[in-house]
Amino acid sequence: MATKGTGRFITVEGGDGAGKSTVIARLCDELRARGRDVILTREPGGIEIAEKIRSIILDPEHVTMDKRTEALLYAAARRQHLVEKVLPALAAGKLVLCDRFIDSSLAYQGYARGLGIDEVFAINRFAVEDCMPDLTLFFDVRPEVGLARINATKGREVNRLDMEDLRFHEKVREGYRLVMERFPERFVVIDAEQPMERVFEEALAALEARL
Amino acid sequence: MATKGTGRFITVEGGDGAGKSTVIARLCDELRARGRDVILTREPGGIEIAEKIRSIILDPEHVTMDKRTEALLYAAARRQHLVEKVLPALAAGKLVLCDRFIDSSLAYQGYARGLGIDEVFAINRFAVEDCMPDLTLFFDVRPEVGLARINATKGREVNRLDMEDLRFHEKVREGYRLVMERFPERFVVIDAEQPMERVFEEALAALEARL
Repeated sequence: MATKGTGRFITVEGGDGAGKSTVIARLCDELRARGRDVILTREPGGIEIAEKIRSIILDPEHVTMDKRTEALLYAAARRQHLVEKVLPALAAGKLVLCDRFIDSSLAYQGYARGLGIDEVFAINRFAVEDCMPDLTLFFDVRPEVGLARINATKGREVNRLDMEDLRFHEKVREGYRLVMERFPERFVVIDAEQPMERVFEEALAALEARL
Repeated sequence: MATKGTGRFITVEGGDGAGKSTVIARLCDELRARGRDVILTREPGGIEIAEKIRSIILDPEHVTMDKRTEALLYAAARRQHLVEKVLPALAAGKLVLCDRFIDSSLAYQGYARGLGIDEVFAINRFAVEDCMPDLTLFFDVRPEVGLARINATKGREVNRLDMEDLRFHEKVREGYRLVMERFPERFVVIDAEQPMERVFEEALAALEARL
């Protein structure tokens, strides 16, 4: 069912403030300028069913939402986005650039929220079948650097809540490290504390090396 | 997290037209008359988040809904109903009678829809953790008998679409048989082709034997 055809499936992962979105948009432009047929997407990606699922997850009134319910809903939205958007593009031979995918669930829900990487992988494996990314770029940044960047764009200083956030994002980064140990063959780590131009060049080189 | 406390968790399963709902309502009344603290429920059970998930599953406009998305959504709704309604009742020492639970997903999605019993069990195991039923009553009825009953209440005859339904419900019954082979210790099979009074008595006896 979930066959990738001749396309290439590239995912980009990392903590907040790693500059993922900026760089991935430039990657998309550059690859297109080089004549590649690229689509850029992120879950839920405008897929109606996936959008509706996401709106249940994000509804601030759902204070009783259980962590496992949430993880199952993310997996459901992932499945639908994959089937309706990613797989048809791959089948048409396109290169799909996806901002966050299965590894975000493993690092955030599986490790940082404590549900277990193996357990969250099991439900996501059901969702994606054998359609794992061909390559995953991990934008690595220390949480305090990522946070400082986010605050800089908002024009404010680090506060107490940010400090709690920091502990959580340390765990997310630790989670990503464990995930990378598990799938060393598909990960490329990019040092995202470098100037954005350098991050972009490294990401592009990693991509071209695999294409 | 998902601990059952001192309560007892009883589920009732079976194909359509097996008389489940009628008998389970009588069981509930009878057990209460005997002084037991019982709640009767079925997913999504009035739990807001679970109701919203269910409404995505059932929306007739969602013609592109993938089978795996659907199975993940059922598991998500199950989790939330379990956490918000079943577990608190069990923790308070109540007897919970639940009309359909995990085995419906295994028989319908896992077997009849072809996703695989093992795979559907994996995502449901994530949803229910170790909170499996203490006892499951399986109301067994041949699909043609169940269908004839349903048609009788609607005052119509068997048609071509019903025949397609029949093949599907044969598979559901086969699926239940495979599920029962897997969990022989918690299943009791009730011959639901008997007169309703006899079905009720057998179900009550099976319940009392376990309580």
